Amino acid sequence: MEKLRTLISEITDLDPQIMSEAKARQDQLTKPQGSLGVLEDLSIKLAGITRQVKPKIAKKVIIVMAGDHGVVEEGVSAFPAEVTPQMVMNFVAGGAGINVLSRHVGAEVVIVDIGVAAEINHPSVIQAKVRAGTANFAKEAAMSRAEAVQSILVGAEIAQQEIDKGATILGTGDMGIGNTTPSTAILSALTNTPPEEVCGYGTGIDDHGLKHKIKVINQALEMHKPDASDPIEVLSKVGGLEIGGLAGVILASAAKRIPIVIDGFISGAAALLASRLAPKSVNYMIASHVSVEPGHKTILNEVGLSPMLHMNMRLGEGTGAALGISVVEAASKIINEMATFSEASVSEKKRLSETREK
Amino acid sequence: MEKLRTLISEITDLDPQIMSEAKARQDQLTKPQGSLGVLEDLSIKLAGITRQVKPKIAKKVIIVMAGDHGVVEEGVSAFPAEVTPQMVMNFVAGGAGINVLSRHVGAEVVIVDIGVAAEINHPSVIQAKVRAGTANFAKEAAMSRAEAVQSILVGAEIAQQEIDKGATILGTGDMGIGNTTPSTAILSALTNTPPEEVCGYGTGIDDHGLKHKIKVINQALEMHKPDASDPIEVLSKVGGLEIGGLAGVILASAAKRIPIVIDGFISGAAALLASRLAPKSVNYMIASHVSVEPGHKTILNEVGLSPMLHMNMRLGEGTGAALGISVVEAASKIINEMATFSEASVSEKKRLSETREK
Repeated sequence: MEKLRTLISEITDLDPQIMSEAKARQDQLTKPQGSLGVLEDLSIKLAGITRQVKPKIAKKVIIVMAGDHGVVEEGVSAFPAEVTPQMVMNFVAGGAGINVLSRHVGAEVVIVDIGVAAEINHPSVIQAKVRAGTANFAKEAAMSRAEAVQSILVGAEIAQQEIDKGATILGTGDMGIGNTTPSTAILSALTNTPPEEVCGYGTGIDDHGLKHKIKVINQALEMHKPDASDPIEVLSKVGGLEIGGLAGVILASAAKRIPIVIDGFISGAAALLASRLAPKSVNYMIASHVSVEPGHKTILNEVGLSPMLHMNMRLGEGTGAALGISVVEAASKIINEMATFSEASVSEKKRLSETREK
Repeated sequence: MEKLRTLISEITDLDPQIMSEAKARQDQLTKPQGSLGVLEDLSIKLAGITRQVKPKIAKKVIIVMAGDHGVVEEGVSAFPAEVTPQMVMNFVAGGAGINVLSRHVGAEVVIVDIGVAAEINHPSVIQAKVRAGTANFAKEAAMSRAEAVQSILVGAEIAQQEIDKGATILGTGDMGIGNTTPSTAILSALTNTPPEEVCGYGTGIDDHGLKHKIKVINQALEMHKPDASDPIEVLSKVGGLEIGGLAGVILASAAKRIPIVIDGFISGAAALLASRLAPKSVNYMIASHVSVEPGHKTILNEVGLSPMLHMNMRLGEGTGAALGISVVEAASKIINEMATFSEASVSEKKRLSETREK
């Protein structure tokens, strides 16, 4: 806990001075003030994060954390658990959605085994298993409190390594058959929202399966009664290892003043955990898209983020984050590369009185 | 009119057979079926447009049409009309928003003077002036019926040239101080919507200016009484040359089976015109973003398009189209590059009965 406390203490406010300088620069670029909307907001946020008026995006990295979930025994997913390690190998081979989209936007994919049930031995996969899958939280705590803390610290350490290797922006991604179930449970526990209101079809269960999934989550919350004011307890009782790991990635990014692009529902659960552990970490988060999973909107509202892309996606893996990273990079190029009114000899807006005289 | 009729007659349905083959391929890729949402839909649409199960995006081109508006005399814009040619020169120099975003997504920008009031002589600007700005439609028709048709045909011809030079996807962009006023008038006239409901602040007028703009549009519609069932009449009475030109770009793209990515409100007015001239042209349109201009949502609903990006942008120039083109390219890469379940040895979804047994 000491290490986690130190990490959290390193997360501070954005730099207001640099942000106002960036805003002043935006207002001099050849466009009506504010007309690039979120691209302008992002560039100002990036300035506040990086303490550079002209923030540059150089190396883009998406960290995909993989873990398995004991609760899959309860029949909450449309896919068998064996798909988690199979998909990890698909990531390694470059054939998954996240590989295609990361190549498209020029991002590197870092694959982490933080809790896959099967053994994975491949040089391209970072070995950081906290345990071989969580326990079935319908019957017992998903993991111990120590493991929950460890999952966060492992995520933070891997993010730190990527930042040390030059990453200037990070994205979050997840792989774990069954992981909409712990994500929904975390959301319900932290916000006191009934699972009925936020539980979705995940990879594609039917209405009967959805009812069952809600029942499993309700019973687990009833049994564990996790304390909503204690995010670590929530993570340990009903969480997932990749969700803890991604919370760690987010916290380390914030501590190191690196923008962190949040993917969909699973990453959102991690962002919600991070925001409860360190409210200022939200300053460093950028929401990429809004997922089909109904709980994702609740998370975005709760954390206070607005998604840029409305694509009806629900794959995870960081696929939304990849698309989002490209938009963030566009924002940094706008403030770096656009000409000012005086550079381009373009007339500025008329004074309002002039407009009125007409 | 003969040429326009021929162009319209060349616009046909998408290819249903190829689309079902593309859908079948999507369902074999290593992800839950449908989980990439709009990226899957787009890939299937691209297949239907291009008649290729694996549609490729090679050369991306954004056509930016520039024109001036006589109605600016009425004090409807926050910027002076001289900004139109100044911004055209900014496009040439590469310092505008559209230049930055096009470079980011690897698209070429083609700049067209279809109706700037000032003379522009630069080898990088296509000279296609139909007339030197429209007339003030508060006093007379913006242009003649023949000029309205010519603006569409000029746009179509330029799109055709770009397709001949290898463009496999086109985006629309506009430049014209004051052009939210004709766009709003076109929208109001074609859909019988009161300007009060769809008129916005454009480049940044104040509330007083907005009231005045609404009054100018209302009076013009009252004076000209354009026939809603005659899009050419609407364009000639209250339109703009760049709006007609962009409608032509859209019609030619559709006729040549090239996907056309629609930018914001001005491009939306052109898309609405195109959809009324040739309802099947909608098959070839892809909406990039939803603008701050309130009328844009009305246009998207009317044409039947869903925007991908929610960025509070309102710059025009094709800036939203540039970001959108990159998402469309991502969709084409998904269907081209993702591994299938069998290629990646990943287990497929369980039968629902199996899920239920658990």
